[in-house]
Amino acid sequence: MSPFSAIFVPDELADALSDAAWLEAMLDAERALVNAQWREAPAAIGDALRADRYDVAALAMEGRGPGTPVEPLVRAIRAQLGEEHGELVHHGATSQDILDTAAMLIAQRALRLIDADLDAAAGACARLADEHRATVTAARTLLQQAVPTTFGYKAALWLVGLVEARDRLAALELPAQLGGAAGTLAALGGGGVEVLSRYSSELGLREPVAPWHTTRGPLTELAGALSAMANACAKPARDIVLLAQTEVGEVSEGDGGVSSTMPHKRNPVQAVLADACARHARANAALLIESGVHEHERAAGAWHAEWCALNGALAGAGGAAAAIARSLARLQVDAERMRANISPDTLSEAGRLGIDAGRPEDYVGSTDAFIDRALALHRTG
Amino acid sequence: MSPFSAIFVPDELADALSDAAWLEAMLDAERALVNAQWREAPAAIGDALRADRYDVAALAMEGRGPGTPVEPLVRAIRAQLGEEHGELVHHGATSQDILDTAAMLIAQRALRLIDADLDAAAGACARLADEHRATVTAARTLLQQAVPTTFGYKAALWLVGLVEARDRLAALELPAQLGGAAGTLAALGGGGVEVLSRYSSELGLREPVAPWHTTRGPLTELAGALSAMANACAKPARDIVLLAQTEVGEVSEGDGGVSSTMPHKRNPVQAVLADACARHARANAALLIESGVHEHERAAGAWHAEWCALNGALAGAGGAAAAIARSLARLQVDAERMRANISPDTLSEAGRLGIDAGRPEDYVGSTDAFIDRALALHRTG
Amino acid sequence: MSPFSAIFVPDELADALSDAAWLEAMLDAERALVNAQWREAPAAIGDALRADRYDVAALAMEGRGPGTPVEPLVRAIRAQLGEEHGELVHHGATSQDILDTAAMLIAQRALRLIDADLDAAAGACARLADEHRATVTAARTLLQQAVPTTFGYKAALWLVGLVEARDRLAALELPAQLGGAAGTLAALGGGGVEVLSRYSSELGLREPVAPWHTTRGPLTELAGALSAMANACAKPARDIVLLAQTEVGEVSEGDGGVSSTMPHKRNPVQAVLADACARHARANAALLIESGVHEHERAAGAWHAEWCALNGALAGAGGAAAAIARSLARLQVDAERMRANISPDTLSEAGRLGIDAGRPEDYVGSTDAFIDRALALHRTG
Amino acid sequence: MSPFSAIFVPDELADALSDAAWLEAMLDAERALVNAQWREAPAAIGDALRADRYDVAALAMEGRGPGTPVEPLVRAIRAQLGEEHGELVHHGATSQDILDTAAMLIAQRALRLIDADLDAAAGACARLADEHRATVTAARTLLQQAVPTTFGYKAALWLVGLVEARDRLAALELPAQLGGAAGTLAALGGGGVEVLSRYSSELGLREPVAPWHTTRGPLTELAGALSAMANACAKPARDIVLLAQTEVGEVSEGDGGVSSTMPHKRNPVQAVLADACARHARANAALLIESGVHEHERAAGAWHAEWCALNGALAGAGGAAAAIARSLARLQVDAERMRANISPDTLSEAGRLGIDAGRPEDYVGSTDAFIDRALALHRTG
Repeated sequence: MSPFSAIFVPDELADALSDAAWLEAMLDAERALVNAQWREAPAAIGDALRADRYDVAALAMEGRGPGTPVEPLVRAIRAQLGEEHGELVHHGATSQDILDTAAMLIAQRALRLIDADLDAAAGACARLADEHRATVTAARTLLQQAVPTTFGYKAALWLVGLVEARDRLAALELPAQLGGAAGTLAALGGGGVEVLSRYSSELGLREPVAPWHTTRGPLTELAGALSAMANACAKPARDIVLLAQTEVGEVSEGDGGVSSTMPHKRNPVQAVLADACARHARANAALLIESGVHEHERAAGAWHAEWCALNGALAGAGGAAAAIARSLARLQVDAERMRANISPDTLSEAGRLGIDAGRPEDYVGSTDAFIDRALALHRTG
Repeated sequence: MSPFSAIFVPDELADALSDAAWLEAMLDAERALVNAQWREAPAAIGDALRADRYDVAALAMEGRGPGTPVEPLVRAIRAQLGEEHGELVHHGATSQDILDTAAMLIAQRALRLIDADLDAAAGACARLADEHRATVTAARTLLQQAVPTTFGYKAALWLVGLVEARDRLAALELPAQLGGAAGTLAALGGGGVEVLSRYSSELGLREPVAPWHTTRGPLTELAGALSAMANACAKPARDIVLLAQTEVGEVSEGDGGVSSTMPHKRNPVQAVLADACARHARANAALLIESGVHEHERAAGAWHAEWCALNGALAGAGGAAAAIARSLARLQVDAERMRANISPDTLSEAGRLGIDAGRPEDYVGSTDAFIDRALALHRTG
Repeated sequence: MSPFSAIFVPDELADALSDAAWLEAMLDAERALVNAQWREAPAAIGDALRADRYDVAALAMEGRGPGTPVEPLVRAIRAQLGEEHGELVHHGATSQDILDTAAMLIAQRALRLIDADLDAAAGACARLADEHRATVTAARTLLQQAVPTTFGYKAALWLVGLVEARDRLAALELPAQLGGAAGTLAALGGGGVEVLSRYSSELGLREPVAPWHTTRGPLTELAGALSAMANACAKPARDIVLLAQTEVGEVSEGDGGVSSTMPHKRNPVQAVLADACARHARANAALLIESGVHEHERAAGAWHAEWCALNGALAGAGGAAAAIARSLARLQVDAERMRANISPDTLSEAGRLGIDAGRPEDYVGSTDAFIDRALALHRTG
Repeated sequence: MSPFSAIFVPDELADALSDAAWLEAMLDAERALVNAQWREAPAAIGDALRADRYDVAALAMEGRGPGTPVEPLVRAIRAQLGEEHGELVHHGATSQDILDTAAMLIAQRALRLIDADLDAAAGACARLADEHRATVTAARTLLQQAVPTTFGYKAALWLVGLVEARDRLAALELPAQLGGAAGTLAALGGGGVEVLSRYSSELGLREPVAPWHTTRGPLTELAGALSAMANACAKPARDIVLLAQTEVGEVSEGDGGVSSTMPHKRNPVQAVLADACARHARANAALLIESGVHEHERAAGAWHAEWCALNGALAGAGGAAAAIARSLARLQVDAERMRANISPDTLSEAGRLGIDAGRPEDYVGSTDAFIDRALALHRTG
């Protein structure tokens, strides 16, 4: 996400998605391949696979010709190693193996960072749900007040969304990719399947049933899970923006955002940023899915479109998680205003059902039971 | 999908997504709610919940005012039942409960139909994979011939994509929705959670942890799985279109499609339609996900956008499955042409690795092993 | 848009997008082609090109094989005319010529209907802008009150958006398509360009520089204009939903929408529907654009995906225009509430600049001047 | 576009979209505002508005709190100027004014760079169209050979697409944005409209009818034009990839792309990159349009999502233009292979119409006439 990436993407996540991180991941794939194939690889190879030996900006520039950064990288590695050892590197592999595997490593590492923010956001929701079981507020449908509910219940539903999205991401088992020039692993003789198995295990990635250089299931599934997760962050974000409206004033982000023109304003900036980031996550995830139909044994364009789309989906989803975690952590809840805002019509709706209009809390139904279920899901999810 | 829906969507699936089917599903939801609440519901109610008593076109027209078809439906049901029994229907529920539950029933029923086509498509791939283990053909990357592979392996990778997509759809446990006016089930007194449980069980749908009227996880997950499945159909479709090119001529759809201008052409029409349907599936699935952020306790627009998007995603994905199943069932494979098409450069690539250029089958590496794994996945998947 | 199309799409527009309307448009294209080629076409041909002679549902069904409805239609026409006259119909054309031209006719006719709603919506905004020049209200940024503005100015900006979007649609000059089997018009001998010219003129469509069967500019430009127009409708819709919130209460849709559960609610249903329809318009327009890259002389899938996407974009954009026109026509503005809602902070912001906080109207700056410019644009736009 | 931006985006364009370029553009907006308001601005101000005085990375970091980089920038400028002169900067403006105006400047500057590549691509197509008027080749519909056409005509249709897309971009008149805290220009007293006029003229941008901080027409129109242009680049790209297939071999990219595994391959890499870039352009343009519905006087998320989406759409569209220009510039056309590839069926199709099958050039119909029209459009377009 550029320009002004720092507004949207946490520093650590930005690093994890940087060209340098991709270089590391590509070298990790090459290293795993060496280890999977040669019992005792010469020490020189380990040395040649250190990231500080390469200039990733130059590699990208050289990648314009072949259309991938792997070809110049492999050339550079081999140039260092000379003929004898050079052929031991990248043996039997193709550029796509290295980039697809690097993509999975990048995703795995980014998801680890993102998970901490999802954890924080879910934790904050759980606290709000528990603390505000008795905080009566107006439920709003089509943005019109409907009947009383509790703010704890509202937060509990945010929590369910976040926990389910987080669990779905955690359940992904990202696979390694190794297929060679066209998926057959022909250059590995009869040993292809075994090398794939060792390679996957070296990398801490799942061993796939078969190379997925053309089926793209791992990327479309990841894309679906990332956009669903972005939505789970955008939901509380949207509600917080609405609850923070001047005329509603039921929550605020504490210190809030400062306006360049109007110093009195307290904008719910973190919720706003979560919404913006979620849009980017969804758009890039949709691009990943749209680009998930590959021709024959390597796509002529759809594959090349995936790298930036993956980065964008991870940056957007991670940015959304970080922003909503910040928003929720500092959320100030005005329980009195919540109660005061409940309109006479909303109260009389309760009255219509024989409930004491002065006690809207009698109308909040099963909210406590559902809060309990949400908290239990959070504990075990 | 309109105009010319019949070109794209199988008749049975079109029926399963029709307004009449939605009416049935809404009445099923109302019936389950009655059964979940009242031990012995008056017979008149069962009678009033028969679909033939309602004109769904008229209900849609009357739905313009309230913005949903449920409000006029409930009025019509109650008008039949009179005051005494009328209040027993839709008790404690809101329009969204009925429509969200109907959406899950529609999806469940449509997925059952679609599954038969996925099964047929996967079966056809499995046969092709097994029969063509030894059918050598050129692997193509960036649409350039790369090295030899087998057509059986190509079909085996189509198979893996289809099986994984089908399994993912089959693993979805679509939940019922019941929350009342704003998700609290307040009108059901203390009994909300139990009614939700019985209601779900009556419907054969999963009981959710909590009402999901605002979290939309079930729809975003379904959307992700549908677009991934559409891609799994579009992949063989794309390859078939490419292999059927006049200059390649390695497969054809048998009787093929007739051209209005050129009777000699044999267009791979079913593969083409699968590609077109998959585009619709992805676009509607992306719309479902984009519309998955709902304000407060009911969204003002995003919710209303879901119904047609769901229909479109199911129609597109189902159309893709049906079309690729037809394409694969009639696929004629020209093994001789496959071998003859392998270019000298592709052969000499094999030769470069010391393989007899006259025997490209010596270069197909681990294809057989991966075919076995794909077939095993298909049997147990 | 299905299910419940009637909730979203006006009847007349639904008719204009129906299979029957597409049949009419295809026959119009065939008729224009006959007239463009043969000085005095036999009367029997005119007769054979009457829509009531064909069953469009059956044609769609028969279209499954060839993948278009034109092939069975041409066969049916020729069957009626016998060999002698039959060859005079569809002479030199291909299915895509007829369908692409029909698509332009469908769009042209639909846009005429939609324009009436855009006109009504713009007219309503112009009235609101003029009437409410002095209606002071709070401007809101990030949904926080910022400084005073006028409701007239707000409506004037809605107006600018609508007028610009309407003008852009009106400026589109939709072209006819005629290229024959592959765009060369070879079967017309040397006369291709002249026939194209007469054909276009017969149809009241623009004569293109060259056949656009593969460039798709007319469709991508239309798609862009439709989604921009949908946004111009969604903007007042979104504002109305926000202004109608219980806690804000500055506007309402008059009779409003009825809730199935809460009879006291007055939902801004038409604004809500405009928002939902705009989402469909954008998604289908994006699909049209995504499908705007066609292979060689006819696309294998991207072309077939356009028909439903075009219908969806027109239905969604037209539905949005109709719904926002209804919303604006009945909009009730509560000027007192607007003034009362202005928060002390917002007033003191004025005060900070030396303006009498009791007279926020002194703070509305250039709103009147901009209203005048908007009204002038509306008159001449 | 990251990672490996250099593979996709030309260096100059990357610079024009960098954070540094955005900083320049924001300072240009501030400078124009000073000049528009104060007859003789103190020299110190000009000095304080030099880009080398600011660290844009630090500004982005500080922008996390307020959610925009303008707030810290204005603070930094004022800190340099002290109280007396500080208030003369950013007077009457809001962050959005500066960012929206900067966005238009960024777009204008990027479009200038992109135009050179579009010009080169169109020029190459014009040459190909003229040179290959008599190069007979097979037209292909649904990727099946249909009838003979000429390669010149094929290139002429690419040309029409490129010229129309380029003209549409050139016709955009990007407007300045100035509205103050909420679009009223209240802080400028009665002089708002005049300041807007001078400000626009200082910047070389169109003066809008009214502030467009909430209507977003300029961005949605730009987005539509960019995705249409990306498609116009992707069309020849797709055709080139298909024509370069090993089995077709009618064109190649000359030196072509090198494979890391198969040195014999000549991949049409530039066409492939054009396709990939076009996907990014469309996805980001769709995000811009989706985010074109803004709440009230400033959107809470949709606005913030625009900046990166704009950058992405410009980078993608520009990358596509550069890549297709490179591809076309080096395109090698094998006219003999084109003729040899024409299948007997395609020839006999000509024969069926009484044309000498040995002379397919007799079947190319109006291709020359259309080439002339395309070349004329190019000269005057």
